[in-house]
Amino acid sequence: MTGNTAALASGAHSDIDHYMNQLGRQARAASRMTARASTAQKNAALRAMADAIAARRDEIADANAVDLAAGHEKGLDAAMLDRLALTSARIDGMIEGLLQVAALEDPVGAITDLRFRPSGIQVGKMRVPLGVVGIIYESRPNVTCEAASLCLKSGNAVILRGGSEALHSNQAIARCIRAGLQAAAITEHAVQVVATTDRAAVGRLIAMPEYVDVIVPRGGKSLIERISADARVPVIKHLDGNCHVYIDDRADIDKALRIAINAKTHRYGTCNTMETLLVAEGIAAAVLPALGRAYAQAGVELRGCERTRALLPDILHATELDWATEYLAPILAIKVVNDMEEAMDHIARFSSAHTEAIVTEDYTRAQRFLREVDSSSVMVNASTRFADGFEYGLGAEIGISTDKLHARGPVGLEGLTSQKYIVLGDGQIRE
Amino acid sequence: MTGNTAALASGAHSDIDHYMNQLGRQARAASRMTARASTAQKNAALRAMADAIAARRDEIADANAVDLAAGHEKGLDAAMLDRLALTSARIDGMIEGLLQVAALEDPVGAITDLRFRPSGIQVGKMRVPLGVVGIIYESRPNVTCEAASLCLKSGNAVILRGGSEALHSNQAIARCIRAGLQAAAITEHAVQVVATTDRAAVGRLIAMPEYVDVIVPRGGKSLIERISADARVPVIKHLDGNCHVYIDDRADIDKALRIAINAKTHRYGTCNTMETLLVAEGIAAAVLPALGRAYAQAGVELRGCERTRALLPDILHATELDWATEYLAPILAIKVVNDMEEAMDHIARFSSAHTEAIVTEDYTRAQRFLREVDSSSVMVNASTRFADGFEYGLGAEIGISTDKLHARGPVGLEGLTSQKYIVLGDGQIRE
Repeated sequence: MTGNTAALASGAHSDIDHYMNQLGRQARAASRMTARASTAQKNAALRAMADAIAARRDEIADANAVDLAAGHEKGLDAAMLDRLALTSARIDGMIEGLLQVAALEDPVGAITDLRFRPSGIQVGKMRVPLGVVGIIYESRPNVTCEAASLCLKSGNAVILRGGSEALHSNQAIARCIRAGLQAAAITEHAVQVVATTDRAAVGRLIAMPEYVDVIVPRGGKSLIERISADARVPVIKHLDGNCHVYIDDRADIDKALRIAINAKTHRYGTCNTMETLLVAEGIAAAVLPALGRAYAQAGVELRGCERTRALLPDILHATELDWATEYLAPILAIKVVNDMEEAMDHIARFSSAHTEAIVTEDYTRAQRFLREVDSSSVMVNASTRFADGFEYGLGAEIGISTDKLHARGPVGLEGLTSQKYIVLGDGQIRE
Repeated sequence: MTGNTAALASGAHSDIDHYMNQLGRQARAASRMTARASTAQKNAALRAMADAIAARRDEIADANAVDLAAGHEKGLDAAMLDRLALTSARIDGMIEGLLQVAALEDPVGAITDLRFRPSGIQVGKMRVPLGVVGIIYESRPNVTCEAASLCLKSGNAVILRGGSEALHSNQAIARCIRAGLQAAAITEHAVQVVATTDRAAVGRLIAMPEYVDVIVPRGGKSLIERISADARVPVIKHLDGNCHVYIDDRADIDKALRIAINAKTHRYGTCNTMETLLVAEGIAAAVLPALGRAYAQAGVELRGCERTRALLPDILHATELDWATEYLAPILAIKVVNDMEEAMDHIARFSSAHTEAIVTEDYTRAQRFLREVDSSSVMVNASTRFADGFEYGLGAEIGISTDKLHARGPVGLEGLTSQKYIVLGDGQIRE
């Protein structure tokens, strides 16, 4: 632990340390029970949570109003206030989300690859929970519900630490979660929501490997970098999404236009939005003018290399910084490349390894791109916007990992589990 | 980075930093090539390495003699000198190991779970290398060969840092590895053996996430704890093996005796050796006297709880410390427990989560033990000694992970890879 977090977690905050240790101990004990809870019991808890939220929606709305008023007073910006707001539709969304997670297949206990070995033992793998998950997130209070449901369904205990601006909302949701756990006779320590806004709580949460097995930070890049630097336990982290679409000179032009427009303009603020478009020289004249018109119509600012500007003379000049930037805004960098090799080199150099797509009808190039591009999602002839837990059929996601170990890409229930080996014998010994 | 490693890696050692950065840059560049090397090319390299070792066995033996002489002079103990020695049989073992890894299935590029989604895209997972692996190990020079072969076959580049006492042996083996890579037209930077004995090299190797994706330390617990504490990249670590066998009161007595004797006496120094035997009260009188005689005959010192000593009055009294100790020696702690619940509680409290086994004929208890014991290997009616990459059919292992994320238990080729998502579309966009 270094810097601020260390200072915050040290001596002066022994009350917080004490409190967090207590949550940790309780979570560790609860994790043994959640690990062996039956699927029916976990689903009953999730449905009871949904019922509790439906029954107490006024209480949740009132708590949220307190947070919103305080947020206004503190001068939170409009985007932050929007994320903080629990509208009626969002409360419906939480209820629906809980029921959806209840409907997902339970990953825990699944046995795969069980095979006889020459010694006569059978060896296989059994999917098991990770143990205790710590989740640190910012203003959106509905994450409390989403994260709790995914962790519980995957057999984990969880400690949730939401943003201070959502404290009352999160505590109101936590009461519904506890009611649901109680209804299914699962210990309320299975889901604990940190009740202090003291930032020392975060410092302690990420530095107690004896109680917490993995941390999932959800929020801006600076939050995640800080947590990764200071954590004493593994972090499933999602840094940024500098995503690329490469239009190959053997692309179908209709598909190329459709995908390049959708990948940028479908939503600007998401991590799977295209930030740089790479276009093969041989097809640039056939696609860039039409794309330039479409982006202009959508209000997207373009920044291009020299060869791009030869075709789209009115746009800005792209700098090295543009290739490295995740705009999260209606801005797009465009580069004309000689061929797929140059495109893959550019991606290897500038991509954040989130999601890259090629548009091509060439079989061998598609295969090479799939194999050689080292990102968490690699696509052929599809919009980068598909990189998402729901679209991939995971049901829901706790985050999108840009790491290489453990989980890569959207992290759903399976990403919150691990596999242990099981051995079934009949008295075998090593000779 | 903290403590010694930080001090060693700092200012005074800028030459070492420079050297390690160069190895890192070269490894990163090489990893792009190893990731796309064909199976045939990787296998050709492995076979050419085997040929080179066979052709240069005198050179290797001579280099090893230099290390052994220096080791004698430094006063290394007999066990360390034994591990350091490259006998003719061990050189044969390296050759055979290379050919075995060449014969293993290539995990890279394997696509699983490719399914159509309602949007029309197909989503699946492709197995990919981790990138650059750093391996830090102690005296056994044959690890150089084992680790290099597993990393190369799994498409990774690797930086190997062996013990200073094996420097000449490791460099001789490294020359054979380079010859093999060259013969298969794979860059020699795919496998780099650190050529300095300066400990600052380790400090730098574990702290350059820009070049190294994962560290695998192989050695004593103190080495691994030090590396885990200071590493700035994920560590696949194997701490200790405090393994348990629980003899249930519904055990078959023959199987119980056979397994309890084998799990302790087959080898004393291995991490999958039983260190504590738990015996259900209802069967203790039926098994402990016979086990006491068998262990006495094998020269195993016993330390028991009160109830054990009621049946085996001549043995020492076990303390709390015994329950927590990995003896790695002919010593065994024995505890009589009321039932499986108490056995599982004991395991949850004292086990290092490596390997635990139950001996029982009871179906429901076997299922519960498999599911509820949270160790990397959980066994029914088999000796803990089976927890091993070869026995599990992984071909070979780079280590045994006691971590929960990524890889658990024996880590073979698959543990040196990850999975990315692939999406195959036909022009699909998000609506």
